[in-house]
Parts: sequence; C-alpha cells; structure tokens
Amino acid sequence: MPAPLLSVSRRTRHTPFTDRVTAQGVKSYTVYNHMLLPTAFESAEADYRHLKNHVQVWDVSCERQVEIRGPDAGKLIQMLTPRDLGKMTIGQCFYTPMVDETGGMLNDPVTLKLSEDRYWVSIADSDLLFWIKGLAYGLHFEVDVDEPDVSPLAVQGPKADDLVARVFGDAVRDIRFFRYSVLPFEGRDLVVARSGYSKQGGFEIYLDGSDLGEPLWDALFAAGDDLQVRPGCPNLIERIEGRLLSYGNDMTRENTPHECGLGRFCQTQSAIGCVGRNALLRVAVEGPTRQIRSLAIDGDALAPCGGVWPVFAGGKRVGRVTSSAWSPDFETNVAIGMIRMTHWDDGMRVEVETPDGMRGATIREQSFI
Amino acid sequence: MPAPLLSVSRRTRHTPFTDRVTAQGVKSYTVYNHMLLPTAFESAEADYRHLKNHVQVWDVSCERQVEIRGPDAGKLIQMLTPRDLGKMTIGQCFYTPMVDETGGMLNDPVTLKLSEDRYWVSIADSDLLFWIKGLAYGLHFEVDVDEPDVSPLAVQGPKADDLVARVFGDAVRDIRFFRYSVLPFEGRDLVVARSGYSKQGGFEIYLDGSDLGEPLWDALFAAGDDLQVRPGCPNLIERIEGRLLSYGNDMTRENTPHECGLGRFCQTQSAIGCVGRNALLRVAVEGPTRQIRSLAIDGDALAPCGGVWPVFAGGKRVGRVTSSAWSPDFETNVAIGMIRMTHWDDGMRVEVETPDGMRGATIREQSFI
Repeated sequence: MPAPLLSVSRRTRHTPFTDRVTAQGVKSYTVYNHMLLPTAFESAEADYRHLKNHVQVWDVSCERQVEIRGPDAGKLIQMLTPRDLGKMTIGQCFYTPMVDETGGMLNDPVTLKLSEDRYWVSIADSDLLFWIKGLAYGLHFEVDVDEPDVSPLAVQGPKADDLVARVFGDAVRDIRFFRYSVLPFEGRDLVVARSGYSKQGGFEIYLDGSDLGEPLWDALFAAGDDLQVRPGCPNLIERIEGRLLSYGNDMTRENTPHECGLGRFCQTQSAIGCVGRNALLRVAVEGPTRQIRSLAIDGDALAPCGGVWPVFAGGKRVGRVTSSAWSPDFETNVAIGMIRMTHWDDGMRVEVETPDGMRGATIREQSFI
Repeated sequence: MPAPLLSVSRRTRHTPFTDRVTAQGVKSYTVYNHMLLPTAFESAEADYRHLKNHVQVWDVSCERQVEIRGPDAGKLIQMLTPRDLGKMTIGQCFYTPMVDETGGMLNDPVTLKLSEDRYWVSIADSDLLFWIKGLAYGLHFEVDVDEPDVSPLAVQGPKADDLVARVFGDAVRDIRFFRYSVLPFEGRDLVVARSGYSKQGGFEIYLDGSDLGEPLWDALFAAGDDLQVRPGCPNLIERIEGRLLSYGNDMTRENTPHECGLGRFCQTQSAIGCVGRNALLRVAVEGPTRQIRSLAIDGDALAPCGGVWPVFAGGKRVGRVTSSAWSPDFETNVAIGMIRMTHWDDGMRVEVETPDGMRGATIREQSFI
C-alpha cells in the first residue's frame, strides 16, 4: 500500500511539540495512543544515518503516562506485571511486560517509581489506563489512576549526553541506564531518565506541563547547533536492527511475555499478586513453543512490512514476520518475527512470503545490534 | 496543518475490506481503534453529495465489538452505562453512553443484545475492552470478555434499503430503527441492523468472519450498479450537520453524558449498578453547566477544525469548537462545540478563534439536519 494521507483531528491529539515538529518538516505520522507520532523527517534512511552519528530530539509525547497514586499503588502495580517489583527503588525505571489474566500482553511500558505510593507507567499503544482503572474499581483499591499532562521528549544518539548536559547540567552524565534524576528546567522539576527507544543511547525528558514544551524544544535546538541536532523519531530500521519490539506490531494480546522473548523481565514465581501469574507459571518453566526472532531476508530491498508476512519451511507455516526494513548498514532486509520452536535456532533457513514473492531468510537468535 | 502521510503497519490494523477500499481509490485514512478508517474517496464534498443522493458502502470495521458472554453478562453491561437496560430485548440496539466511576465518558458505543447472556458492544475509539476486562476480573464476574472477528460494514444513503434488500432479501425493509435481524449470506448468519453514523438512513452489517469480507463487499457492488453505489466513509460535513458526536473529538473522559447532550439516554435513577451512578445522580437532576451545541460560523469556508477552537463572548472564554466543516447545503461553516450555559441558548452570538482569525458564530440548540 502506498502511504495514504492522514486526516488529523482533535481525536488524533496534537502534542506540546507538534507545532515545532511541523515547522521543522515532519513528512509522516502514525497515530499512537490517540496521538500524533512522527515517523519520518528527511527519510527513514537519512534519519537512520543521522541518528547513528549525531543527536536527535524525538516527540514521543504519545508515550502517555498512567499515574497510579495512593496507599494501594504498590499492590496494584504488582498486579499488572510478572516482573517482581519488590526491590524496585525510587529513581528506577523498569521495563514491565503487562499481562491480563490469561498471560496475554496488554502493553509493554516502562514503569517509573516516583515515591513509595506513586508510579508512572509510560505506555505503548493501548489504553492501559482503562485496564488499571477497571481493576482498581473492581477491587476497591485506594488509588487514584489518571493520565497526567506529561509528555516525554527523547534525546537519542551518540551525542545525546553532550546535548542534554548543556541544558540540564553535567549531572545528567552520571545518570545510569534505566535510572532517572529530577532536574530543574526553567524553575520546574523534570524527570530525566537514561532510556529511549533506540540502541544509540540517550535520555527521555518527561515534560511535566504542556506549557513548557516549546521552551524545552527550543533550548535543546539552541544548544545543539554544533552537534548537528535535528528532529527525529523512533526509526524503523534501527529499532528492527536492535530488536526493539513494538506492541501491536510484533506482539499483541495473543502473546505471552515468554513468546516475546521477555522472559528475563518475568519473575513469575515471586511476582505474587500478578493477575496473569497462574496462566504464566507453567510457560515460565517449560518455555513457549514460538518466540520472537530476528531474521535477515535475502535479496534486494523490500518495502517495509505493512502487515503480516507468513513464514514457511518445507511448505509448512512456521511463523510470521511483523516488522521489516532494508538496512543500509547490514545490507540486508532486517526483520522481526514470531517463529515456531522447530525453526527458531540460529542460522536456520526459512521462506518468507512477501508482496514481492517468496524470499529465503535466515533466523538470528541475537539482534543485529 | 496540511494532511501529512500516514505510515501503515500491522499496528494500524487492516480490515477485511482494506484491499477493496484501496483498489477503489481511498484518498485518506484516520486510525480508529488501532485500525484503518477511510476518511475520503473523491473528496469530502463530493462524497457528501453522493451520500445524500445515492448509496455508499462504508468500511467501519474499526467499530470493533467487545463481546460479553456468560451468566454475569447482564449485570456487567448495566455497570457500564447510566442507560437503563432492564427492558432491553434481544434484537435491539441501544446507544449507550459508557462512563467511569466519576461519570466521565469512556466511550459511546451501540450495544446489541444477542441473547440473555451475550452482548456485543460496538465501540467508538477507545479500548473499552480493557475497562470491561478490568472490572470483570476485579469483581470476579462469571463472564468472558473478548474482541471477536466481527467487522461492521455500513450501507448508508437514501437507496440503502434497495441495495441491502437485493443482497439480503426484502426482509431488511421491515427492520425498524436500531433493531437488527439475523439474515443469511453465503450460508452464514449475519446481524443486519438498521443503524449507522449518518442521517441518510441505512444499515450496518456485522460481518462475522473476515474470510467473508470480500464476497460481501463484492455482492453489494455487483447488486448496486444502477443505484450508483460507491465506497464511502463517515462524512465529516454530514455528521456535523446531523450533530453525530465523535468520541475523542467532541467529547472525552472529561465530559459527562449530560454535557454531551446525551441525557435522554440516561436513566441514572433506575440504572442501579452503573459504576458512575453516584457521580451522575446530581448532574442528572440539576443539569450540566456546559453542553454540546451546533454552531454556524460566519464567513467563507474554513478548513476543518483539526484540534480545538476557543469560543468567546464579551472577551470571556465560554466554550470551544471541536468539529467544523464547510457545508455546501447550508452555505455556512457548520460546527459542533461545548458551550457554557450562559451562552448556549438558540440564536446567541459568540466569537470563535479559528486559524483564519476571529469569526462570529451563532449557537443552534438543534442540529442542522
């Protein structure tokens, strides 16, 4: 399908940065949590090259926060995930697969512990707020669950430390991976975390109050001229190389965290209270029968996968590709897919049914980067 | 903002009809319930004229169903809405504002009663499934809550009866407004309801099983050549003229049903069990302090409202416009907005801050059509 036009309305929410993003030449969007998420500025390949060499500012406001606050917040947050949050400390960010009572993935957010009774859940594309509110109401928990006016702005790329240090001070250099510090900007305290949806390093600044959006954007661009700072966005090619999963693309409610290769984020046995615990205990021990893998698809450049490409071996269906793009660095079509255990070993050969016809492909246990 | 390109992926789900819609020249989409929803074929104005004169087939698969099934289904469905469902019978469709414990709108679906213990909730753009699942889990209800493979296809326009009768038989002519019949198509029973998101009349066919999508589409087009059948979609101009509200545009979780002018669908006093009942009892009696109104905005054609336009009177903010479009039939900019009670009476004059500058506007208590 050639890219169609997107009709924009209040329902496809603008962000605090949309006017800047538009002025700086965004070419395309997707809609994510009912909000505009840029998908390309110059082009996927040019954006990719720049991301790997310089520094980019990404409007990822669509990573909305679900704030859980109150005496039962800790109990409620543990219900949501098979990751054991018992030792989580204030200042930490945890990648937290979140599941329903069947163990099916509802979202794969990053959870921030702000205080003993206050958390932000920085969500992927589903209304996790509704699930959490429903649970809290049904269980008579003493919590407030809401979406605050918080919009993450990511700064990603090898020069991210330099850029963010110029705006927030050298303290940012000491922030460890998946930790955050609270740092002042124009008199307001902002959460600044070392995290982000790329493998190039960087930060996510949790803009707290839309009014400060353009001042923050402008400060980063004013400080970064010699660093060749540019607007950017999660890059399809780079995230597939790094096997950063996309909820709704590479996994859905049909999948368990173990199928998604997220078993290392699950301590199902000790995650007492998790609503999906019973459903996941067995699969946590025995392992899944299909799992996320990277693939290198043979031949020349394919247009990115816009849906699902079936994967075959010996004429039998053994999986599906759900994300793919041509990688200039690896000179192959890099892909992510869900593959049955009979064919998921490193180096195994399969066939992928693409719009361009059948293509050979090689399974990779590890990501490309 | 000029219309940007939309990046399509598995996450912006295709429908059973997307290939047909693409082949027949869709120009633009929005994303609705994580799914592609066409927004224009020829142009908004040409589509509008055709809709009012002929018959269109609309891919509204994005009106996903939440199926609630099991012994507690009736109890659970009443929890969701201040509309009294006590006398609802099998074969009825009810427009049901759905609210959270604060009385805030979570969705405004059409609910279909399929049997005493089975309902479909045909949703607007929010993951209502998550709210219902959360409630059901928290309350230990004996129900199954899921999204079935059901994709509504709407047939709208003055010739809709003729077209649908040719495919499903003359029995469709006897279906009353917001009632459905179960009728066979290629050996499968499909729900056919007299409903739809226009004021031009017509049906929604609940395609049950994606495999039957293209046969159904093709049957309608094969039968309708002399009726000038065309592909279409919910039309912005016509739905604003008819004051058909759009969740996420004209109302959000911030609004009560009463603010949305949906008080006639609430019997809050008798809707025992509705989770928002306590919050809504007072407003149900006293009425809201702001409410949805139609507006006619003076002057020449404005581009459709892509966000929120503030409304003023005497220099004070008195509301906002959230949808607007130029109406060829009424030769004015028709709009929908939320207006404070001081200025909501029919014929009152206000000012709207548009991207084109301040414009005078007249409040209308009634819709245009």
